[in-house]
Amino acid sequence: MYDIAIIGAGPAGVSAAINAKILNKSYIWLASRPVSKKVERAELIKNYPGLPDVTGEQLAFVFKHHAESMGIQLTEGVVTGVYDLGGRFALLADNRDFEARTVILCLGVEAAKPLEGEEEFLGRGISYCATCDGALYRGKNIAVVCTDKRFEHEIEYLCSLAAGCTVFPMYRDYEIKAQNAKIVLKNPIRYEGDTRVRRVVLKDGALDTDGVFILKSAISPATLVHGLRVEEGHIVVDRSCATNIAGIFAAGDCTGRPYQYVKAAGEGNVAAHSAAEYIANLK
Amino acid sequence: MYDIAIIGAGPAGVSAAINAKILNKSYIWLASRPVSKKVERAELIKNYPGLPDVTGEQLAFVFKHHAESMGIQLTEGVVTGVYDLGGRFALLADNRDFEARTVILCLGVEAAKPLEGEEEFLGRGISYCATCDGALYRGKNIAVVCTDKRFEHEIEYLCSLAAGCTVFPMYRDYEIKAQNAKIVLKNPIRYEGDTRVRRVVLKDGALDTDGVFILKSAISPATLVHGLRVEEGHIVVDRSCATNIAGIFAAGDCTGRPYQYVKAAGEGNVAAHSAAEYIANLK
Repeated sequence: MYDIAIIGAGPAGVSAAINAKILNKSYIWLASRPVSKKVERAELIKNYPGLPDVTGEQLAFVFKHHAESMGIQLTEGVVTGVYDLGGRFALLADNRDFEARTVILCLGVEAAKPLEGEEEFLGRGISYCATCDGALYRGKNIAVVCTDKRFEHEIEYLCSLAAGCTVFPMYRDYEIKAQNAKIVLKNPIRYEGDTRVRRVVLKDGALDTDGVFILKSAISPATLVHGLRVEEGHIVVDRSCATNIAGIFAAGDCTGRPYQYVKAAGEGNVAAHSAAEYIANLK
Repeated sequence: MYDIAIIGAGPAGVSAAINAKILNKSYIWLASRPVSKKVERAELIKNYPGLPDVTGEQLAFVFKHHAESMGIQLTEGVVTGVYDLGGRFALLADNRDFEARTVILCLGVEAAKPLEGEEEFLGRGISYCATCDGALYRGKNIAVVCTDKRFEHEIEYLCSLAAGCTVFPMYRDYEIKAQNAKIVLKNPIRYEGDTRVRRVVLKDGALDTDGVFILKSAISPATLVHGLRVEEGHIVVDRSCATNIAGIFAAGDCTGRPYQYVKAAGEGNVAAHSAAEYIANLK
């Protein structure tokens, strides 16, 4: 069991990890990729005090270097669920699970809004995790909605198990090698079913299915953590970065505007200190 | 009239100034010295993301360089009063005054707690500003309580006006050249009077006086801004860094723990954005 689980590799996540280490807490730092895509893409950042006129790529590099210089390791994995076990939390990332006394959510704001039916049928035919749930669909017909080329190996894994595999690639330049994959270049707009998901609804028709895998790196906070208070897409936190769930903190863009690197880094710092204080009070 | 007046040259102040400039607001950036004393004194800062293992002196240097590279000028001056004029604020700094639509307080936490009687008699015989009020005491007997060698030229100015000048230097290595200065190496513990201040009370006695000048760079927030909500020494702010007074924002250590550079810089950013939003809504 870790003291602190940190989710996200943007400025808030890096800052939280640095402070978890300095505060001498055990921690696991999880993110879907080693560097925040949003940071890396920024053209020119003029208002990160101390680093004038830095490109996103440079800022991502110095963040990474800072963490590495302190021996801080990131564990790559898409966290698809955070479960409150009472006094501790379980985190599911790909096929592994981790336990921690506190969680710091540094999720950014890129999380696509879930489609209608997505949250309703999550765990009832809809899954975010190929390696966790793929085996349940051996010999069945599945749909796979994929938002990022990086997850294509998971599509191939799913297709190797399923009898029929309809793939909706939501990005350009897809290269899906599975022979039984049927590529459909349309956007799902809704999921329907009864006690389980049964159909992927498109603008002009629908596809019957036994299960749906949605492969995306950014899962909306309310979906990730049951009962988390979210308003207008932002996790509600107080000045100490505490959410409405005791032991869960949030930092960075996911807590609201302004969407700024140094604001996020500052909140990562605050959240780590708040988590450490929370742990001290547990004992 | 400026859009934004920023008080303080620590990480919060630098960050607020950078963002005021980027947000294309007119601003005045006031501080008692060009670089925060607290930052400069820090030995080694390990958790300012992007700048691993930086000394306080180095961090102060890069902050200063960042501001200068954007053409941001700091105006040196000790702000001794912020007055709400309804929709705008007047700031008194040394002998000058400035007007602004909004104020961002980045005061740090080094402000000495005012002594008993200090706030009561402020403006009634007690003054923080030699150049503002010195002439009122021509030919009178005054006491000067000075916390920093940098203000010795003000002591000399006051002594040149007053008939009798008792000086309490609250630091080592004082060099007070005024011939009529009577140096007392004791700490004032309280100020007493009736409609005006009359006495400086010491542990073992008291000094009668016509007026008291308290020369210090850090004035407590509640003294600086009448009606500002302060709890346990910290300015109360919400998530947008707004104080209880519309148009006044606060950032950095003065808003509370953790006392951390990147938390302060993050709040300076938030406060500048909130001030800009507030101004947009005024119009």
